[in-house]
Amino acid sequence: MNKTERIHLDKEIRQWLKGLDDIIPQLIADMHTETKANQFDLVTNVDRMIQDKFEMFLQTHYPSHQLFAEEKNNDLVDAKHGDVWIMDPIDGTANLVKQQTDYCIILSYFADGEAQLSYIYDYPHKVLYKAIKGVGAFENETPLPTVVERDIKYLILSYNIYVLNETTLKDLKEAAFSYRLIGSCGLDSVRVIKGQFGAHINTNSKPWDISAQFLFAKELGLKMTDLQGEPLDFSKAGPFIISNPGCHKAVLNILNENGGYQADFINKT
Amino acid sequence: MNKTERIHLDKEIRQWLKGLDDIIPQLIADMHTETKANQFDLVTNVDRMIQDKFEMFLQTHYPSHQLFAEEKNNDLVDAKHGDVWIMDPIDGTANLVKQQTDYCIILSYFADGEAQLSYIYDYPHKVLYKAIKGVGAFENETPLPTVVERDIKYLILSYNIYVLNETTLKDLKEAAFSYRLIGSCGLDSVRVIKGQFGAHINTNSKPWDISAQFLFAKELGLKMTDLQGEPLDFSKAGPFIISNPGCHKAVLNILNENGGYQADFINKT
Repeated sequence: MNKTERIHLDKEIRQWLKGLDDIIPQLIADMHTETKANQFDLVTNVDRMIQDKFEMFLQTHYPSHQLFAEEKNNDLVDAKHGDVWIMDPIDGTANLVKQQTDYCIILSYFADGEAQLSYIYDYPHKVLYKAIKGVGAFENETPLPTVVERDIKYLILSYNIYVLNETTLKDLKEAAFSYRLIGSCGLDSVRVIKGQFGAHINTNSKPWDISAQFLFAKELGLKMTDLQGEPLDFSKAGPFIISNPGCHKAVLNILNENGGYQADFINKT
Repeated sequence: MNKTERIHLDKEIRQWLKGLDDIIPQLIADMHTETKANQFDLVTNVDRMIQDKFEMFLQTHYPSHQLFAEEKNNDLVDAKHGDVWIMDPIDGTANLVKQQTDYCIILSYFADGEAQLSYIYDYPHKVLYKAIKGVGAFENETPLPTVVERDIKYLILSYNIYVLNETTLKDLKEAAFSYRLIGSCGLDSVRVIKGQFGAHINTNSKPWDISAQFLFAKELGLKMTDLQGEPLDFSKAGPFIISNPGCHKAVLNILNENGGYQADFINKT
C-alpha cells in the first residue's frame, strides 16, 4: 500500500468514525451492561454495536479484509497476512459504565503485518488522534510534535495499582514526578503520545488495547516494548509499555528489580 | 444575602470567569514555573495573574470584600465574618505545567461564614460547575441531579497514593470497584459531585482546595467531612473527604483502621 492509498483510506475511516457521533448518544441512553471474565470485566451494547457496525462497513466496502476485535472470536484471523483491522470498540468500558467519560475507540489497519493507519478516538471529548505510516501523527488533523526526551524524575507515570507488587509501586512512586490514572489504555497512551505522561504500563494488554499505539510510537519516536524491553508482537500483545525515550530504561529497571513487578491481587481495571 | 441577590451576584461572577477565556491562552503561551515548598509544589504566572485579576475585580466592584487565596498572605483575613471570597486561581498546577490539562479554578463566596456561591471552572474543557445556596448545583447552567447512594464495592475512589500507608492503600483497593486519579482536588471532587467517583480524599487540603465543595455537597446530598467524620472548618481545611453517602463510612473505617492512614513519604501531588 502506498502513501496515496493510505491517505485515501484514512479519509474514509475518519468519515466512518465521525458517523459514530450520530449513533453513540442513543446507544448510551439505552445502555445495558454485562460482566465477562469477572465483575470488573464489563461489556455493553455500545461496545457490541460499534464493532458490529464496523464489521458491516468492512463487509460492504472491503470484503477481503479481516477484523480482529475484542467482542468476537478471533481464532480464524491470520493477523500477520493480508489486510487486517484490529479494533477495541470501547476501550475503558468500566469508565463508560461508571463515568460516562474517559473511554475511546481504538482502531488500526495492518497490511501483511505492518501498521499502516491508527486511530484513537476520544469520543467524549470529540478528539480524533490518528497516525499514518510515513506521514505522521495528528490530533484532529493538527500534526503532533515528537516528544521531548526527559528524565523519569520530571515525568508522570500511569499504571494499574492493582497489578504491581508493593515494592515496585513504592520504587516507581519515588523515581517519578508523580502518578495519574485515566483507566483507559488508549487514553493513558495518548497522554504519553502527547508528552503529558512519561509512560503508561499495562501488564496484561490484549492486541486491541495497543494496536494503534505502534504507529504513533514509530512516527513520534516513543519507545513501545514488552516489559523486558523487547519488541512486542502486535497479534499477541501482553505486558506492555509506551514511553518517553528518556525514562524507558529507568521504568523497566524498576519493574524488573527485586524479583519482578507482578502482584497476585485480583485484576481490576 | 437573599436568593435574588445571590442570583444577581452569580451572573456577575460567571461573566468574570468567562472573561478568563480571553487571557489564559496568552498566559499559558508565556508560562514560567517556580517551585514553592519543594520541587513538587509549583506556581506559575498563570496562577498569579488570575488571582491578581480577581483581586482587582473585588477592589473595583466590592471594595469591602476580603480575598483569601493560595498565592497571597491571608494572615489579616477574618474568613468567618463579613464578605469573603476564597480562591485557588489554579488548582492542579502540576497538571497545568506537565499536561496543559486537568486543572481548574476554584472560587467561592462566604457571607459571615456561610457558603453562598461556589464555582469550579474546568477551563481546559470550558465547563463551569456552580452551586448557589438554596437554588442547586449546575454544570454549564444545566441542573445536576443528586447522586444515587451506592456501596463502596460499586464505586471508583480517588486519592493520592503518595500519602497513604501500604496497608490502607491495599484495603481501599480491595474494598472499591477501582481507582482513578486526575490530580486536581477540584476536578477529582467534581467526579464525586457528578456520581462518577464514589469519593475523593485529600489528606492535606488547604481552604482554597475545598472551599467550593461545601456548597455542592450540601445542595446534592454528598458527605463532606474530615477523616474522622467530623465537620470541617472551611477556614482551616486539613484532611478531607467528599463522598457518595453510601460509601462514606466504609472509606473512613478503612482510613482509620490499623493505626491510621498516614505514610511518611514525601508529599507529591
